[in-house]
Amino acid sequence: MMYNPLLLPELKEMLRTQDRPGLEELLDELHAATLAEFSAGLSSQEIWELLSYAPVERQAEVFSYFPLSKQVELVQEGDPERVAKTLEAMPHDARVDLLKQLDEKLVEQLLPLVRPSDRRDIRHLLSYPEHSAGAVMTTDFAWIPAHVTVEEALQRLRQQAAECETIYYVYVLDRYQHLVGLVSLRELLLAQPQQCVEEIMQSEVISVRVDQDQEEAARVLAKFDLLALPVVDPQNRLVGIITHDDVIDVMQQEATEDALHMAAVAPLEENYLEAPFARVWERRAIWLSCLFIAELFTFTALAHFEHAIQAVTALALFVPLCISTGGNSGSQAATLVTRALAVGQVRLDQWWKVLRHELLMGLALGVTLGAIAFVRAMFTPESILDGVDAWLLAQVVALSVAGICLWGTLVGSMLPLLFQRFGMDPGYASTPFVATFVDVTGIIIYFSIAQALLLA
Amino acid sequence: MMYNPLLLPELKEMLRTQDRPGLEELLDELHAATLAEFSAGLSSQEIWELLSYAPVERQAEVFSYFPLSKQVELVQEGDPERVAKTLEAMPHDARVDLLKQLDEKLVEQLLPLVRPSDRRDIRHLLSYPEHSAGAVMTTDFAWIPAHVTVEEALQRLRQQAAECETIYYVYVLDRYQHLVGLVSLRELLLAQPQQCVEEIMQSEVISVRVDQDQEEAARVLAKFDLLALPVVDPQNRLVGIITHDDVIDVMQQEATEDALHMAAVAPLEENYLEAPFARVWERRAIWLSCLFIAELFTFTALAHFEHAIQAVTALALFVPLCISTGGNSGSQAATLVTRALAVGQVRLDQWWKVLRHELLMGLALGVTLGAIAFVRAMFTPESILDGVDAWLLAQVVALSVAGICLWGTLVGSMLPLLFQRFGMDPGYASTPFVATFVDVTGIIIYFSIAQALLLA
Repeated sequence: MMYNPLLLPELKEMLRTQDRPGLEELLDELHAATLAEFSAGLSSQEIWELLSYAPVERQAEVFSYFPLSKQVELVQEGDPERVAKTLEAMPHDARVDLLKQLDEKLVEQLLPLVRPSDRRDIRHLLSYPEHSAGAVMTTDFAWIPAHVTVEEALQRLRQQAAECETIYYVYVLDRYQHLVGLVSLRELLLAQPQQCVEEIMQSEVISVRVDQDQEEAARVLAKFDLLALPVVDPQNRLVGIITHDDVIDVMQQEATEDALHMAAVAPLEENYLEAPFARVWERRAIWLSCLFIAELFTFTALAHFEHAIQAVTALALFVPLCISTGGNSGSQAATLVTRALAVGQVRLDQWWKVLRHELLMGLALGVTLGAIAFVRAMFTPESILDGVDAWLLAQVVALSVAGICLWGTLVGSMLPLLFQRFGMDPGYASTPFVATFVDVTGIIIYFSIAQALLLA
Repeated sequence: MMYNPLLLPELKEMLRTQDRPGLEELLDELHAATLAEFSAGLSSQEIWELLSYAPVERQAEVFSYFPLSKQVELVQEGDPERVAKTLEAMPHDARVDLLKQLDEKLVEQLLPLVRPSDRRDIRHLLSYPEHSAGAVMTTDFAWIPAHVTVEEALQRLRQQAAECETIYYVYVLDRYQHLVGLVSLRELLLAQPQQCVEEIMQSEVISVRVDQDQEEAARVLAKFDLLALPVVDPQNRLVGIITHDDVIDVMQQEATEDALHMAAVAPLEENYLEAPFARVWERRAIWLSCLFIAELFTFTALAHFEHAIQAVTALALFVPLCISTGGNSGSQAATLVTRALAVGQVRLDQWWKVLRHELLMGLALGVTLGAIAFVRAMFTPESILDGVDAWLLAQVVALSVAGICLWGTLVGSMLPLLFQRFGMDPGYASTPFVATFVDVTGIIIYFSIAQALLLA
């Protein structure tokens, strides 16, 4: 395994002394991702200088491995003519991702310098809505017409190879660009040179529509173990492909988004430590404030039962224990159901099965926790009991814990399904959301039981 | 897009009437994943019958797309001889995944029926520890010696193609099986037929060690956008490859595990709705009970401040509000840091930067929530105040909320780093864990402030 094989000061020294043989060898031998990672510590000026020791295709390859924020910096501080040449040689999807991050002004300044065919391609890809298959696809796919022979197909592939993101899947198009078949390079290699492509191609091609969600595209590629997934327009014309590495990126991005939803943070586009403070504050404060305002109702609920607390102070001491039970059991159930929905183990129309399952589970878990609560409450010190029967108090606490645990489990399992039903991301039925909801209702359950058993 | 193009009753009818031409066409034309999905509703008997209309390689392909639980069922109810033939033709990693799910007895009954070379391969792969690169790799990779010409290499590939999981990356081995280079099929296709492979191969090959974690392997493949990642033993001999589709599976599995950690559920191997009730109860009850027992300390803490509650009942009413603030802000910070660690945006040695960032953020968020709390507390009804100065009470609540928010943010951001430092999964610094910890300490912060300002 070869990572960062050289230290940054050495690289700087090579640049300072213009060590052409050394730098050319370096740029030739290392993986583009390694080069990008390792030169990220240089200034933009130095990076452009380093890249100039490689041919423009290689420059573009290394360039697209820099983090987006670094790419933006390089574009802003680079010579526009050179930036335009780099854009021309970059993968079609990567350059669009970059341009989306730039000032519109800068884009309008750069685009006229890019050659017309690439310019058109960029404008076209920029027009697809965020998170759609069109927005993540690339237009540099390999294709052949159906009537050619295997030998001719291989010849055409050799010509296209330099510009294509992958040549391992070759799409077969009719003269109107309709997707009519797929042949893998493996199949071409195994076929007789004089066979017609039409004979060996698969005619049932799995594809997605350009306006479908990127997550759906990722799921389809993953399900069928594909290297690349063709993207078609409503007329079934091939407009692009989504490759396996893009799907891995989409999946990482979606996993982060899901995790942030679950912790109630609005998603961030930037790196955690690089994002501007004010923006991060805003994203975090919005949700925390909403939850806090919702949580204010715990005060209202408790105020309603103030006479009970005044009569039996010991009741107040069990409040955090009782309500946290609901939050924890609710967040367990919500996470299980959300994940099961995400990986397709549960469908919306199975809500009844989920409800039955969680009803039993909530009861079983409630009994478990209630038993622990009962034992603990029996040991309440005399000074705190203040005349209240420990046996009766233990019953109140145990029943409340069991009831709130069941309630939290039911709420936690049903909310993600409900959210999905109304077209919202089930991930929003997150731990803090469920916990806050169950906190308020938990107080009501607890004191209602206390009033019935203890204060009647 | 072609999914389930036919209804289950039609398929059953075709099987019943032994419609050979129809069934053969079906098995030939549909994607193996589609066939598996769509025939999963049949009985094991019917599935084996359906598969018998296809050649054994195709049978094995479709078979490996069934969910593991279905594969187990098919093996248990199938003819051992046929099962053995299917195992021989299955991808090497998929069949090992299946055998791991079976009874040891059944495995020992099946293995003697499998041809010796496959049997050795299975025993070998079974020996790698769970979650290691060795346990997810497959041994059916394409390879060539270094001294052959491009033409010869293509010839050898054609011979290997049928058995290899991918022929798009070809590994170059010396006579001791050492991994000395990599050449892609694209490069072979573009090279002159008489060139020596040694001239065109990349000699710096990115690989992982067989004992490395599968997650690390997934990260490397994703980072370098590879189709497949070679797995080597400590002597740098090539022992297997991990392909892009396996990495997608690993990532989905790890995302689920992370989510479950965050909600404090011990991971489940089975489908959510299919897992046995008692096992699920156990997995959920263990963590809930631990959290519950930890949460018992909220009672202890509150009991310590009982005199304060007896003196000013209003104080008790703000307890859930104050402590939930710590839980929510802590879970936000913990999730952000955990995700940043997972995607490599933050390294352990940057803990100081994270601390400084979260210190400022905790203060900013604390001030925000403290302000809301202050306004709300000012409106505490006279009947609840019971003679206490509303202005003073509002100060206590606002200061506590701000302080607990800061405290929660700091705890939430540092715990994942601390866990990672001691070799534990940072995901265990999950929302419920952080919330429980902050609940207990939050009570102490709140009442300490109250005692200092209100009861002094």
